[in-house]
Amino acid sequence: MQKRIITLGEIMMRFSTQAHERFIQAQDYQVVFGGAEANVAASLAHWEFSAAHVTAFPDNDLGKAARNYLRSSGIDTSYVHFTEGRMGMYFLEKGAMQRPSKVIYDRKYSAFSLFDSSLVDWEEVFEGADWFHWTGITPAISASAALLCLDAVEAAHRRGVRISGDINYRRNLWQYGKSPLDILPELIKSTDVIIAGLTDFENCMGIIEEDYAEACRKAQEMFPTIKKIATTHRNAISSSHNSLEAVLWNGEELLRSKHYDMHDIIDRVGGGDAFMAGLIYGLLHMSDQDALEFAVASSVLKHSIPGDKNYVTVEEVNQLIKGENIGKLLR
Amino acid sequence: MQKRIITLGEIMMRFSTQAHERFIQAQDYQVVFGGAEANVAASLAHWEFSAAHVTAFPDNDLGKAARNYLRSSGIDTSYVHFTEGRMGMYFLEKGAMQRPSKVIYDRKYSAFSLFDSSLVDWEEVFEGADWFHWTGITPAISASAALLCLDAVEAAHRRGVRISGDINYRRNLWQYGKSPLDILPELIKSTDVIIAGLTDFENCMGIIEEDYAEACRKAQEMFPTIKKIATTHRNAISSSHNSLEAVLWNGEELLRSKHYDMHDIIDRVGGGDAFMAGLIYGLLHMSDQDALEFAVASSVLKHSIPGDKNYVTVEEVNQLIKGENIGKLLR
Amino acid sequence: MQKRIITLGEIMMRFSTQAHERFIQAQDYQVVFGGAEANVAASLAHWEFSAAHVTAFPDNDLGKAARNYLRSSGIDTSYVHFTEGRMGMYFLEKGAMQRPSKVIYDRKYSAFSLFDSSLVDWEEVFEGADWFHWTGITPAISASAALLCLDAVEAAHRRGVRISGDINYRRNLWQYGKSPLDILPELIKSTDVIIAGLTDFENCMGIIEEDYAEACRKAQEMFPTIKKIATTHRNAISSSHNSLEAVLWNGEELLRSKHYDMHDIIDRVGGGDAFMAGLIYGLLHMSDQDALEFAVASSVLKHSIPGDKNYVTVEEVNQLIKGENIGKLLR
Amino acid sequence: MQKRIITLGEIMMRFSTQAHERFIQAQDYQVVFGGAEANVAASLAHWEFSAAHVTAFPDNDLGKAARNYLRSSGIDTSYVHFTEGRMGMYFLEKGAMQRPSKVIYDRKYSAFSLFDSSLVDWEEVFEGADWFHWTGITPAISASAALLCLDAVEAAHRRGVRISGDINYRRNLWQYGKSPLDILPELIKSTDVIIAGLTDFENCMGIIEEDYAEACRKAQEMFPTIKKIATTHRNAISSSHNSLEAVLWNGEELLRSKHYDMHDIIDRVGGGDAFMAGLIYGLLHMSDQDALEFAVASSVLKHSIPGDKNYVTVEEVNQLIKGENIGKLLR
Amino acid sequence: MQKRIITLGEIMMRFSTQAHERFIQAQDYQVVFGGAEANVAASLAHWEFSAAHVTAFPDNDLGKAARNYLRSSGIDTSYVHFTEGRMGMYFLEKGAMQRPSKVIYDRKYSAFSLFDSSLVDWEEVFEGADWFHWTGITPAISASAALLCLDAVEAAHRRGVRISGDINYRRNLWQYGKSPLDILPELIKSTDVIIAGLTDFENCMGIIEEDYAEACRKAQEMFPTIKKIATTHRNAISSSHNSLEAVLWNGEELLRSKHYDMHDIIDRVGGGDAFMAGLIYGLLHMSDQDALEFAVASSVLKHSIPGDKNYVTVEEVNQLIKGENIGKLLR
Amino acid sequence: MQKRIITLGEIMMRFSTQAHERFIQAQDYQVVFGGAEANVAASLAHWEFSAAHVTAFPDNDLGKAARNYLRSSGIDTSYVHFTEGRMGMYFLEKGAMQRPSKVIYDRKYSAFSLFDSSLVDWEEVFEGADWFHWTGITPAISASAALLCLDAVEAAHRRGVRISGDINYRRNLWQYGKSPLDILPELIKSTDVIIAGLTDFENCMGIIEEDYAEACRKAQEMFPTIKKIATTHRNAISSSHNSLEAVLWNGEELLRSKHYDMHDIIDRVGGGDAFMAGLIYGLLHMSDQDALEFAVASSVLKHSIPGDKNYVTVEEVNQLIKGENIGKLLR
Repeated sequence: MQKRIITLGEIMMRFSTQAHERFIQAQDYQVVFGGAEANVAASLAHWEFSAAHVTAFPDNDLGKAARNYLRSSGIDTSYVHFTEGRMGMYFLEKGAMQRPSKVIYDRKYSAFSLFDSSLVDWEEVFEGADWFHWTGITPAISASAALLCLDAVEAAHRRGVRISGDINYRRNLWQYGKSPLDILPELIKSTDVIIAGLTDFENCMGIIEEDYAEACRKAQEMFPTIKKIATTHRNAISSSHNSLEAVLWNGEELLRSKHYDMHDIIDRVGGGDAFMAGLIYGLLHMSDQDALEFAVASSVLKHSIPGDKNYVTVEEVNQLIKGENIGKLLR
Repeated sequence: MQKRIITLGEIMMRFSTQAHERFIQAQDYQVVFGGAEANVAASLAHWEFSAAHVTAFPDNDLGKAARNYLRSSGIDTSYVHFTEGRMGMYFLEKGAMQRPSKVIYDRKYSAFSLFDSSLVDWEEVFEGADWFHWTGITPAISASAALLCLDAVEAAHRRGVRISGDINYRRNLWQYGKSPLDILPELIKSTDVIIAGLTDFENCMGIIEEDYAEACRKAQEMFPTIKKIATTHRNAISSSHNSLEAVLWNGEELLRSKHYDMHDIIDRVGGGDAFMAGLIYGLLHMSDQDALEFAVASSVLKHSIPGDKNYVTVEEVNQLIKGENIGKLLR
Repeated sequence: MQKRIITLGEIMMRFSTQAHERFIQAQDYQVVFGGAEANVAASLAHWEFSAAHVTAFPDNDLGKAARNYLRSSGIDTSYVHFTEGRMGMYFLEKGAMQRPSKVIYDRKYSAFSLFDSSLVDWEEVFEGADWFHWTGITPAISASAALLCLDAVEAAHRRGVRISGDINYRRNLWQYGKSPLDILPELIKSTDVIIAGLTDFENCMGIIEEDYAEACRKAQEMFPTIKKIATTHRNAISSSHNSLEAVLWNGEELLRSKHYDMHDIIDRVGGGDAFMAGLIYGLLHMSDQDALEFAVASSVLKHSIPGDKNYVTVEEVNQLIKGENIGKLLR
Repeated sequence: MQKRIITLGEIMMRFSTQAHERFIQAQDYQVVFGGAEANVAASLAHWEFSAAHVTAFPDNDLGKAARNYLRSSGIDTSYVHFTEGRMGMYFLEKGAMQRPSKVIYDRKYSAFSLFDSSLVDWEEVFEGADWFHWTGITPAISASAALLCLDAVEAAHRRGVRISGDINYRRNLWQYGKSPLDILPELIKSTDVIIAGLTDFENCMGIIEEDYAEACRKAQEMFPTIKKIATTHRNAISSSHNSLEAVLWNGEELLRSKHYDMHDIIDRVGGGDAFMAGLIYGLLHMSDQDALEFAVASSVLKHSIPGDKNYVTVEEVNQLIKGENIGKLLR
Repeated sequence: MQKRIITLGEIMMRFSTQAHERFIQAQDYQVVFGGAEANVAASLAHWEFSAAHVTAFPDNDLGKAARNYLRSSGIDTSYVHFTEGRMGMYFLEKGAMQRPSKVIYDRKYSAFSLFDSSLVDWEEVFEGADWFHWTGITPAISASAALLCLDAVEAAHRRGVRISGDINYRRNLWQYGKSPLDILPELIKSTDVIIAGLTDFENCMGIIEEDYAEACRKAQEMFPTIKKIATTHRNAISSSHNSLEAVLWNGEELLRSKHYDMHDIIDRVGGGDAFMAGLIYGLLHMSDQDALEFAVASSVLKHSIPGDKNYVTVEEVNQLIKGENIGKLLR
Repeated sequence: MQKRIITLGEIMMRFSTQAHERFIQAQDYQVVFGGAEANVAASLAHWEFSAAHVTAFPDNDLGKAARNYLRSSGIDTSYVHFTEGRMGMYFLEKGAMQRPSKVIYDRKYSAFSLFDSSLVDWEEVFEGADWFHWTGITPAISASAALLCLDAVEAAHRRGVRISGDINYRRNLWQYGKSPLDILPELIKSTDVIIAGLTDFENCMGIIEEDYAEACRKAQEMFPTIKKIATTHRNAISSSHNSLEAVLWNGEELLRSKHYDMHDIIDRVGGGDAFMAGLIYGLLHMSDQDALEFAVASSVLKHSIPGDKNYVTVEEVNQLIKGENIGKLLR
């Protein structure tokens, strides 16, 4: 039977400039929809999971279009609410060569940021669920979004659903008067699988530590529910040339993935979410080491696809891991 | 010497769907910049006026792009301020056949709506100015925008600058606790030329009257500064087929323009602003009747051009009035 | 509770030339997916019905893309099968002025045309269904498709599901050795609502009759299950200018709809399916006359929208019927 | 056996703005190739004539692209020369509503305008030819182009090839010191079929006459070789709405074609050339009246097709004449 | 005098996704026409050969468009037949980074696959021909296509025309009941120049051998007509980074080309055909070693050009061989 | 207070093929405006200089569009003249891999090349100016353009304005009977900052010297006004992979910049102008070494941006120099 995953988070309308134009030149924008958590749901639905996403959109045609995007990905939209507020947006200027890519966020006052947790029947949401995934972006948006995330984590935990959290600390968010340390420990303490780098440990758990394995050990002491901790290491040589590898703390040792060199990157947005989706898929189907390899290969392939969503099959991820078909023309 | 016009108002980024797609289908959007008052400035600058526009943009690349748009139109951007707040936006879905066009506004919390009038040196702005133009959209946006408009009108009036105001009552704005009747009379009382229809008279001046000439007479009694009042009559047979004509009250009688049938309309947004620009140009250069004809012909031509801005020459407007070159292929 | 509709039929990949180019000029093609019956499902899903579509696609990425299109429309794709055969396709050259539009079909050997009815669990399909819709295209494609349609109609009828059939006789199909008179009476005899014109009566029921009401009467005699019969009358003045009206035989009298003049048509493909969807919606919610008006107004609006699918709301259809908002710019 | 037609004339690169944008807005241009005489050759080649075009292009990739365009139309390019000079160009701004279309020519110093007639082996060119077609544009371009045209007409006449000439007087050309009356009579005196309107009669033959039939009679007296004279009457209601009809003087009486109303015109450039091609085709295959109807229907259909070239079949022209398939969707 | 080449083979309509989109995302497709043998003819025609291509298209506008493509390349289309059957098609998804490119073929039941050899007057086809080129794709398509190829090879051989064959074994074809070993030896035994790799030797000639030179020696023993055998070696580091080199067996020794590193590949489809065209050109104009270098440099340049066709000049190929102008901006 | 720079030179309409298509394939062209000197002005205006450009355009809509482009960049267009002549144009075919990029110039008979210096009030132009920049392209175009440049240099020199000149010798220009040695020494002798490579020294100053520092020393002896001499060294590995570094002779020693490797270049046109603009900015704000680094980093970033203009901020240039944010995704 298909595993069922629940995700929660904001989905934004993404406006990208074309042909490497800068914002100041742009006269037309390509639109896709995306959000860290929904990107995870989309990947898993593409891999035949049963996925449902909890979110809120404005009650207008832009919100409807966003909902239809979720549907096209095979995501259950029963828990999409149409409420007061704007459509969250972001503008993406794709870099080139040494020039970095730029994002302008325009997500304040969005329907999701104003969304009231009491509108969600969390018991119904988690009925039959196998996994719940949240990220540190949600509690960073607003007080009500933080509450939403807490309610979800608690409900999932109560029902024994496995929980993953991508800490993903972003300094520019967190403008509503709370700090990550006020909220995140509450979320982490019910979470099984954590994505966190050293700055996340510091800012969101208060763990200041330069050795990653050691940081993981301390996090597990602090939050005994945690079973796995992972993070990716990206090295940006240029906008189109990055390298990627990842590590996974399995409670005992630090497993290391293969290292991938990525030339001629098409779109790196969603790369972290593709890693997360791959990790969830892997942890449910294979050994820790294989899960890690699956996650990082999934992330690598995402970089070759325009948009937020990782349109790759499980078979394609496995072929990359085995080094098969690389750069070929398959007829 | 070139006449100098000052305009004040918000400029928004306009996202239009392509090829008559509905919002719910759209995957790319064409972007232009526009705003009622700046559209007037752009027309007049295109006709060799010296035009300056007072506004505020967010201090990011979207704001810079908007500023450059003004510059490309030959508008003096010395009074463009880069301040706190978002870029105002609107989404335009172009109708077809009987199906109406739709606009989704997303202008709340914009830099302009939060802009502080005390940042503007109004004396400097109006130095050497011949004309100031405002619209009823500005005081409808926010309390600070209303104050901005009042300060501008007063400063212009003090310096003896001629003033026009396009009342343009929009029910969906006016959400900050004031009603049009609280503000607009203050603005109108220093204004020389008014664009107002019967609903504008009622909502913004409290004049309830079914006969337009009579309404104009009452308005002049109430606001003796007013010298001319005009309005356009549009009849929408379908999204691509409208008719247009206009009237001008010159203080004594109601002048009527020719009637134009407009088939295969390309873009009606900015049609009213093209009328306003034509009227200002006309009142400064010709008889009242000719000015009215110039204004309505200017508006008609706007409907044939994509975007907010009326890229037509004075000569082209005059040719339309004379019925010359209509639908020809000019080689 | 939402009504549940089941539809059955082939979905094709539609390749349209751009900007009124002829096939012989075209260098890029816009792709949408569509099929008569799925278009009906899409409309009804857009109007909050629970809709499921039964079909077969090739087991490749083109088939997956078609499936995702259905999903984006909110259609339940549990009964989409991935089987042997090609993706059915058609090429659309949009006419202009007097020049007609052209379709080149390339649907032979498609997965649907080869699809085996025994792969479908018809009992499961119709569980909880309120309505089943088929068209005369399906039995025209191949012997197996005809069988598929018969099995579906019989299963639906057994379960007491209401059934509609759009006869839609197309001479160019029917190439597998059977004639419409061999098959269609079997389908019609369990059907409640029929869309048929005079040529359909003749070719598919053997009723030769010039008076439409009389033809309906005879059809009801022959097939007593039939409760309503409707048809649209289209008059093509040019590729972009058609008129449309419709009639509905309610078993007693011939009801006539309003007459609509459609200028500047954007895309007429799917216009008949929009009528059908409107009629089903109407017959379930309103009087026969109102249902007929709803159906024809739904069809008219479809002509204003690119692609096969009718992205309009129930409210928009009602506004057209009332003559509200026609050709307006709604802000 | 296929008839063989020879045409002579300049082919230009045509840059068109998109989506009704004005030149001043345009940021991308669509390119096609076209020229009055080559458009005639392209139509006739499309109708299975053997067609060859004599012209000169610059010896660069733009010239090669123009040559390949001729080839794609099935035109024999053996007499295309690559010589000194620029590629002739023109810019096309498509009008809308009352706003006229505009052309900016940039054809001075082109390879064709500098082309030396002595490089052409006219005897070889006309071997086996049935028809030669020239227009009044060629002698208007430059002294060398006028000589080219004279040499061609004389060589064709010597060999007994039928000759047509589209007078097409354009005031803006003729800048090299000669007037039409210096050159055109020399060309006309060997020509069998003339396209000329009243201004052409006046400017190019010195015949001042208000009655068209009378003008034709006088022209035949002056130039006894002339057998037929035709002209089209276009009425431009707007850029997208014209009417068209034509007359043909057959030496005895003035035949009149049907009148066509053309709404939603896609591209009127090449409409006259489509008439000319239709007339040549008609005069070789049918009665004068039928030829005239064929010519005008060919021209009407051209208006529905983007670009200079008339991609219609003989069958489609005949269907329009008979009123068949108008505005239909042909499946 | 120009050399004359005859080619035979299927031409397909190629639909490519844009901007590295995957099939499942694509909403518009770019269309070009191409086929292995016609690509060779197009290159040679571009290099001023007289080229004619023998093929069959469906008798519709898609077939006409394909025919016009051949014409635009300067290919003689006298032997293009319009017959029963579909247009052969393929869909191309361009890979990126490690992700491979994908092709979905949809060529079954095509006009070419059903084409009857007896419709071709092979004697007329080969009159005056200097070279005939076939590939192993044709006999793999269908029994009738295999017969077509055999008839052509025999007729060419009878007339003493030099013959080349690109073995190009593709496992997915060959579905009509014959194996390559049934047919290819018959073709090879009249062929002068063969393109074959080790798998081609094994599958199509039954030569199992790991050393390439040795395999060539055995092939020559078995098929004494063979004079040259060549193959390319491609190494795919990623979709946009390949390396390429080639070898040529001249009957005595194995000549090796330079090695090329290809970064930022634009389109690799047609790369092998560009090699073949280069080799034919080279063998007719230069030493074996130079011919090999010409062939591989021609292939390298193809990778920089979108579409199937190699739009490069002989001079550009020679410059690449000499290392001139590489990556420059030529003004 | 803002520095004021004056530039003089031709601005051309640039037509670029899309998606790496070759000219011979192109069916649409992207248009931008650019010219060496105006590109410098645009960069400096973007960096908040007060910039004015002196030039001439044809008095048509293409000229107006070019003028508006300058305006959008914030350049003062008071000295743009609308005169007789064509719009200068160039066509750009972007290379790929080893295949070079190609430019076809079509600038003969342009308004600028025919422009009469006496129409410019040079005293007014240079009032308040801090810097004047010219290039060796202007005197190469025509005798009148050479005079224009001489008049400008002399007027600037008289007023004590600092002067820079980019020698930029192009063999293909200089077709009006003069050689660079006839004109350039006159210009150089009043110039402070020179961009020149060894071939420029030889062709434009008669200095034949292989050692760059020595050449600079000799140039300073010959032209004592010169204070700085710089040049860039570009190494083209492929069309998308170049390296760049630069040197600056400060009168005493040769300073060397960092070396940059540029992969995945977007558009190299304007790279030299971005260097020049950076150098002017640098020399006015920082040490010679820092100025050189600023100039070369500015040039590197230009290669990442489509079009002629360098849309980068001073801060972005400084970040590149410090190695900050390289290839990042900035949120």
